[in-house]
Amino acid sequence: MIRAPILHWIRRYDHRYLTDDAVAAVIVTIMLIPQSLAYAMLAGLPPEVGLYASILPLIAYALFGSSMTLAVGPVAVVSLMTAAAVSQVAAPGTPEYLGAAILLSLLSGVVLIGLGIARAGFLANLLSHPVISGFISASAVLIAISQLKHILGVPVSGHDLPAIVLDLWRHLDQTNGPTVVIGVITIGFLFWVRSGLKPVLSRLGLTPKLADIFAKTGPVLAIIVTTGCVAGWQLHEQGVAIVGLIPEGLPIPHLPPLDFTLARELIPAAILISIVGFVESVSVGHTLAARRRQRIEPNQELIGLGAANLASGLGGGFPVTGGFSRSVVNFDAGAQTPLAGVFTAVMIALTALFLTPLFEYLPRAVLAATVIVAVLSLVDFKSIQRVWVFSKSDFTAMMATIAVVLLVGVEAGILAGIAFSIAFLVAKIARPHVAIIGNVPGTQHYRNHLRHTVIQSQSVLAIRFDEMLFFLNSHTLEDAVAELLTETPVLTDLVLQCAAINEIDASGLEALESINLRLESLSIRFHLSEVKGPVMDRLRRAGFEQLLTGQVFLSHHDAMLTLDPSLAPSNQEP
Amino acid sequence: MIRAPILHWIRRYDHRYLTDDAVAAVIVTIMLIPQSLAYAMLAGLPPEVGLYASILPLIAYALFGSSMTLAVGPVAVVSLMTAAAVSQVAAPGTPEYLGAAILLSLLSGVVLIGLGIARAGFLANLLSHPVISGFISASAVLIAISQLKHILGVPVSGHDLPAIVLDLWRHLDQTNGPTVVIGVITIGFLFWVRSGLKPVLSRLGLTPKLADIFAKTGPVLAIIVTTGCVAGWQLHEQGVAIVGLIPEGLPIPHLPPLDFTLARELIPAAILISIVGFVESVSVGHTLAARRRQRIEPNQELIGLGAANLASGLGGGFPVTGGFSRSVVNFDAGAQTPLAGVFTAVMIALTALFLTPLFEYLPRAVLAATVIVAVLSLVDFKSIQRVWVFSKSDFTAMMATIAVVLLVGVEAGILAGIAFSIAFLVAKIARPHVAIIGNVPGTQHYRNHLRHTVIQSQSVLAIRFDEMLFFLNSHTLEDAVAELLTETPVLTDLVLQCAAINEIDASGLEALESINLRLESLSIRFHLSEVKGPVMDRLRRAGFEQLLTGQVFLSHHDAMLTLDPSLAPSNQEP
Repeated sequence: MIRAPILHWIRRYDHRYLTDDAVAAVIVTIMLIPQSLAYAMLAGLPPEVGLYASILPLIAYALFGSSMTLAVGPVAVVSLMTAAAVSQVAAPGTPEYLGAAILLSLLSGVVLIGLGIARAGFLANLLSHPVISGFISASAVLIAISQLKHILGVPVSGHDLPAIVLDLWRHLDQTNGPTVVIGVITIGFLFWVRSGLKPVLSRLGLTPKLADIFAKTGPVLAIIVTTGCVAGWQLHEQGVAIVGLIPEGLPIPHLPPLDFTLARELIPAAILISIVGFVESVSVGHTLAARRRQRIEPNQELIGLGAANLASGLGGGFPVTGGFSRSVVNFDAGAQTPLAGVFTAVMIALTALFLTPLFEYLPRAVLAATVIVAVLSLVDFKSIQRVWVFSKSDFTAMMATIAVVLLVGVEAGILAGIAFSIAFLVAKIARPHVAIIGNVPGTQHYRNHLRHTVIQSQSVLAIRFDEMLFFLNSHTLEDAVAELLTETPVLTDLVLQCAAINEIDASGLEALESINLRLESLSIRFHLSEVKGPVMDRLRRAGFEQLLTGQVFLSHHDAMLTLDPSLAPSNQEP
Repeated sequence: MIRAPILHWIRRYDHRYLTDDAVAAVIVTIMLIPQSLAYAMLAGLPPEVGLYASILPLIAYALFGSSMTLAVGPVAVVSLMTAAAVSQVAAPGTPEYLGAAILLSLLSGVVLIGLGIARAGFLANLLSHPVISGFISASAVLIAISQLKHILGVPVSGHDLPAIVLDLWRHLDQTNGPTVVIGVITIGFLFWVRSGLKPVLSRLGLTPKLADIFAKTGPVLAIIVTTGCVAGWQLHEQGVAIVGLIPEGLPIPHLPPLDFTLARELIPAAILISIVGFVESVSVGHTLAARRRQRIEPNQELIGLGAANLASGLGGGFPVTGGFSRSVVNFDAGAQTPLAGVFTAVMIALTALFLTPLFEYLPRAVLAATVIVAVLSLVDFKSIQRVWVFSKSDFTAMMATIAVVLLVGVEAGILAGIAFSIAFLVAKIARPHVAIIGNVPGTQHYRNHLRHTVIQSQSVLAIRFDEMLFFLNSHTLEDAVAELLTETPVLTDLVLQCAAINEIDASGLEALESINLRLESLSIRFHLSEVKGPVMDRLRRAGFEQLLTGQVFLSHHDAMLTLDPSLAPSNQEP
């Protein structure tokens, strides 16, 4: 049931991979340290919790994950969802808040492993691309705006956009000058690093890929410089919020006492966080695996990510998943196996053990700037525009997701996205396309008479029903036939071409039976053509073939030639 | 917007119809009097409310309904739903209970008319045949068991099966002997009337149809005899519960004071009652209309039934809809137009004005017996068995509906039925059928190579995807292609036959793009064939044709001959 893919790849491990994995680990560590501190802050947790969430989870994923290059740890959207869920049950800054975050991580681990064992990875498909894209974009905006409080140095407690903006506005007069200067310069610097540094590095002779990787280490540079400034000029005495003393050392992994009431309150959030984290992680995992012609196994990913979250909770951390930019850096830096993750974990552990005093004077505004710059790259206007052009229902589901995320919250947003998608699906199936079809001259092919120039029979009406024949639309077929009968002249036969009827349910069968009866009363024979195997099996089981006044034809062309010999080419040509 | 079909048929009214309509009205009145009293009792209301609900609604429906023969009034399932909803907000027997029932009727009228104006009749399609059938059967069992208290003469207050059975068991020692004797004899008599009376009447020379109609008047006979017995022997002094004094006269139609808090509590129930009532009414309406080659217009039916419920509320009645057996009797008795309903209304009004003293000694057990015998005929075991053979998902949805109706309640049951149906639909779409297809020799037709003996190309792989290409299954297509690529030898082309892809959404487009890219990296061209018009329109709008490495073919046969000339018959025969 539960496999550990490490047993496969470790046997084929080649010593030449070692350097690649170690180099990638160094680069990912440099990127991960500021991110882990910043995302812990975003989740409303002490910064060291971010480090704890970046050690054991990486090792657990290395044992059970199926991707060779995915880099797990705290990520922006999951941290936001953690803050939203945990602040419902505890006050930020309290031990209860931390305890709830740890419990949420454990629950999320249990949910993911449960889904993996049940092979329920397909559940992630409930989230359509536009809904995911809208969710990520809206969350990114929400995160960026929620971090403005650190840039301005004002207290803000709201969790939805109107509340945050109102809080910011109310406290605008308390803005701390030095904090704003540090924050704004850091944001400017980080944006420049993204776009302006790469060309400079390239001119200095670095390969584009290397330049790209170096540009990703910008946050560390910002941290070093700003921490130096604050420490040197003692800016915290002028109101610049700093990280402060981080306890050295690591918590001993242990299972916290289980609070069942709290667990029950957190389980819906744990399920949503699991699904969102899984979707985000699998999509980057797929992308990277395809580049090296590897594959990832979604159900195994559930186990891997579940193990990572269990490990995070045991080690005093909060929910984690595979990060997009971090995994891309890991991949581009040359990581060959999950051993790179293990090396990263070791380096983060060493950081937590020995380097935390260095972060004492790190301004919180710099961490916020890191988050803002990172998440704004997730806002995907192009995708919104593309979806608008392609499908208005997809666009509506996307916009609903965005609006609900911003105005109500992340959990409500993801649920609204799923609900809208399914409602549109149901509406689409409920309004099937029904076409009268005719022969495309010179072929055995039959198409919609409104779109193509086709030959039709005078006595045999041929219609095509373009949908599964289900309870949602079985009345539509009955109504369409009833309407056609009032419009068309004397008929001897009606052929239903079933090539697009992929499924049939009991309501569909009743519709066919009632059409058959109705036609019988008008002395019109009812035929089916090109019935799909699974549908035919069902109709046979229900004994429909015996009731049918006409026949079931393998090909529609056969049906037409049999029922109306005047259509045969030999009869037409003279 | 709102039409009154009466304006059409009244102009063509023929004096010969008058006798037909009047005769039908007499027979329906005889049937309706005991039913209206009994269903009011089932709804927990005073018996006269049943009469009030059988006057104005019939006139309103005659003005706005589209069926020529539907007989509206109180029906069993809607009465049960009324009892379930109203007992949540008020105690039975109080004026508040009656007020809530009247408000529920008004709300239901507003909901139905609103749906009609929005032309949302299709919403009824959310209820699949098996769910409706299961719902009706389970409600019938629940009603029959809930009426046992009147047969035994014991107090019972539960609303779900376990509570009712437990209550009955607890009070079994309080059983009233004379009541049981009256109840059991009446049940036996009514069952005999159904099955045994008809042959007797036929032997007496009545036509089968006339015998059938007479058999339906059995309840009135039972009422006359038992009322006589109770009055003659003063059985009510021995504990036989009787209807008692019914106030003579009719309430003056008026709008009760609006209680918005109560309205908000009742609106979900009003929506469910409206949909269930509409579905029940439309299904009998369709059946009867088809027999005379008439049609009913679902959206107009919503208006007609909405007007009937508004009228019922205004006249002091409770929710009504078109009744199945009553409409059949109306039809069989020869009713030609809704004027039969108006005549019925007049006769019920006369009854309410002058005949109510006759019902004083009517035993409640007899009304309960009427209900029990009527609803037991609704239990449809054959349909359960048929669905089991035809479709396991339909069967599961049906069983879930039955179980939830019996164990939780009617509203939860109908919602569970809809939820299960949609969940199975989603699950079905999420697991599409993908087939490798080949040419059926001697035709231009292509079918699944596992089901048919077909000719396949060595270099061109042809697959068919049997579902709309949507977010739920777009990954499946990607995975299927990825898997086929590992299984099949060197390919030059892959053709996706799209005849069964009825719709595509943004996630589906992304899947096609990613397959196109993947195949391009392997130097395999990607083609589409037999793309449906609406799908092709979408792909064009998204510019997919420009990205596609291969072509879009009108017919799959064309595609195969073009891409692999060795398949041409001239090349095969030698």
